[in-house]
Amino acid sequence: MRKVLAFDLGGTKFAFGVVAEDGTVLGSGRVETLAEKGAAQAVARVAAAAHQLLADLKLRPSDLCAIGIASPGPLDTVRGCVDGSPNLPGWTGYPIEGELSKSFGGLPARIDNDCNAAALGEYLFGAGKGKKNVVYITISTGIGGGAVIDGRLMRGANGNAAELGHIPLTMDGPRCGCGNHGCWEAYASGTAIARRTREALAAGRASSITGFAGSIEQVTTHHLFQALTQKDPLAVEIWDQSIDYLGRGLGAVINTFNPDVIVVGGGVTAAGDALFVPMRAKANGYAFPRLAAVCSIVPAALGGNVGVVGAAACAFEAAV
Amino acid sequence: MRKVLAFDLGGTKFAFGVVAEDGTVLGSGRVETLAEKGAAQAVARVAAAAHQLLADLKLRPSDLCAIGIASPGPLDTVRGCVDGSPNLPGWTGYPIEGELSKSFGGLPARIDNDCNAAALGEYLFGAGKGKKNVVYITISTGIGGGAVIDGRLMRGANGNAAELGHIPLTMDGPRCGCGNHGCWEAYASGTAIARRTREALAAGRASSITGFAGSIEQVTTHHLFQALTQKDPLAVEIWDQSIDYLGRGLGAVINTFNPDVIVVGGGVTAAGDALFVPMRAKANGYAFPRLAAVCSIVPAALGGNVGVVGAAACAFEAAV
Repeated sequence: MRKVLAFDLGGTKFAFGVVAEDGTVLGSGRVETLAEKGAAQAVARVAAAAHQLLADLKLRPSDLCAIGIASPGPLDTVRGCVDGSPNLPGWTGYPIEGELSKSFGGLPARIDNDCNAAALGEYLFGAGKGKKNVVYITISTGIGGGAVIDGRLMRGANGNAAELGHIPLTMDGPRCGCGNHGCWEAYASGTAIARRTREALAAGRASSITGFAGSIEQVTTHHLFQALTQKDPLAVEIWDQSIDYLGRGLGAVINTFNPDVIVVGGGVTAAGDALFVPMRAKANGYAFPRLAAVCSIVPAALGGNVGVVGAAACAFEAAV
Repeated sequence: MRKVLAFDLGGTKFAFGVVAEDGTVLGSGRVETLAEKGAAQAVARVAAAAHQLLADLKLRPSDLCAIGIASPGPLDTVRGCVDGSPNLPGWTGYPIEGELSKSFGGLPARIDNDCNAAALGEYLFGAGKGKKNVVYITISTGIGGGAVIDGRLMRGANGNAAELGHIPLTMDGPRCGCGNHGCWEAYASGTAIARRTREALAAGRASSITGFAGSIEQVTTHHLFQALTQKDPLAVEIWDQSIDYLGRGLGAVINTFNPDVIVVGGGVTAAGDALFVPMRAKANGYAFPRLAAVCSIVPAALGGNVGVVGAAACAFEAAV
C-alpha cells in the first residue's frame, strides 16, 4: 500500500505523520513551531523529527510517494510557500515545498490551505467518502471552507480558493477580519457567537450563562451550550439566531456548489444534534429545493487527525 | 478536426449548430420552441432541422463525436432532462438527452445548464481561453453563473451548480424569485437596476431618465445608460449603487473560487467601460488582495453565439 509523509503546519504546533493510502496514520509526532523565529528553523526541526519517525517505522524516503503540507492561508501554491499568513510572520516566500522535498530525497511535495486539505481528507477518508462533490466547512474561531469538485480539490489560481467564511450576509453588519462588514464568519463563527452572547449580557440581559463562565468577559460558546441545555431563554435566543446565520451561509454554499454533502467540523459542532438538526432545516430553507434535496449535511469524521490526514490526502492527489 | 452538434434550448427559440473543435460554427439554424406545447414536438422539429443542416453541410451523424444541449435550469443531469424550469412547463422528465441521441445514431449527448455551458464555452473558445479557472457571470434579466475549475466544468451533484445570482447580499432586502430576500440578483441584475430606477422616479426624484423612456413604467437599463452619458444625477447615483452591488457579488465570487478570470456577459455589459472600470475596482476592494491580484474581470467574447458554442463546448467535454 502506498504511503506519504504529511505535515500539518500551525502557528503553535507543527504536526507530522506517515499515512497509508487507506487513511491509516502509521505514526505521527509534533514539534513546536516557534513561528516567530522564522520558517527555516521550524522546517529543519520538523524534518529531523520526521526522519526519526521514518527510522522508527523502518521506512526510507524512497518507500513514500509524496509529501503533503497543510498550512494556514493565504498561500502561494505557484511558488509553494506561505504568503502573508498572520500567524506565520516572516514565513512569506520561504520555499517550504522545495525544502521538505529536498530533505526527503526529492519526493514531490505539495502545500495546500489547511481547510482545503481537510476537505480532501474528508472526501478521501472521512465523512465525504464515496461522494464526488464534497464541501468542508469548519465553524471555529473563524469559518473556513474547502471544496472537492467531481473528485478533485478546488485549489484556485494560487491555492486560495474557498474562502467561504467571507460569503456576505449583510452589507453593514459586524466588521470582519478581512476588512469587509457582515461576512458569514462575523455572524456565525464560534468567536462571533460568543461575542454576540457577551454583548447581550453586557446590555443587561439576565441569563444563567454568566454564572457558568464566572464573568461576562470569560463567556465562550461552551458556556452558551451549558445554558442551552437548561433552556435558558437568552441562550435559546442567541442559539436560534446563530442557527439562522449558519443556515443562510450553508444555503449559499448549496446554491454555489450543488454538493452531494457538506461536511461540517470545528469546535461549534460539539453541540451535536442541537446544531445539526435545526441547521440542516434552515440551510435547506435558504437553498433551491432541487439542490437541497440531494445534499446531506453531516459532522466531520476525521476529528483531531484532520490536519495530518488532510495533508496526506493532498500528497496522494499530488502523487497521482 | 472533430465536430459536434449543439443545441441551445430557450423558452422561445431552439437554436442549433454544427461546431468544430476550434469553436467555429460551421452552420446553424433555429426553430420556434413553442414551449407550452411540450418537449416532444419541439425536440422532433429541432432534430429534423438539424438533420437538414447536416445534409446541407454534407455531413452524417457519424462524422460528429457528440451532442451538447444548453438549457435553462433547473436540470436533472442524472436523468438528462429539464427539471422544473419555469419557462419550459411540462418538460420536466422528458428525456431530451436520450431522444436527441437516438435521433442522431446514438451519439453521446449531454445536457447542461445554459450558464454553465456558457462558462465552458468562454473557457474553451472565448475570453477565458488559456486560463484554468474561469467563472462566467451574466448580468441580464437575472444574474447567472458558471464555473470552470482547473479546466473542467463544475456541474455539481445534479447539474445545478453555480447559482451565483443567489449569493446573499442582505438578509432583508428585496424579495428574489428564489424565495429569499436580498440575493445578489435582486439588487444588481438588469431587472433589479431598472426596478430601483423606476422606484426612485416614482418617489418623485427629478431626472432625464423618464424623458428617454416616455414614461416611468417603460424605464429600462437602456434609458438609465442614456441619462448616465449626460451625467444625470439620479442616473449617476443609481449606477454607482449598482456598481457597488455588482462589486460585492464579484468580490464573493473571487473569494469563493480564486479564479484566474471572471468573464462577464449579459445585456448590462453593453455599458462597456462605464461598467467594467469601476466594477473591477469595487470587486477588488471586497475580495482578499492576494486573490484579487491574480483575477482579471473581462467582457464575454462569444456574444450571441454563446448558447450554441457553449453547448458545443459541453459536447466536446462529454466526448473526451
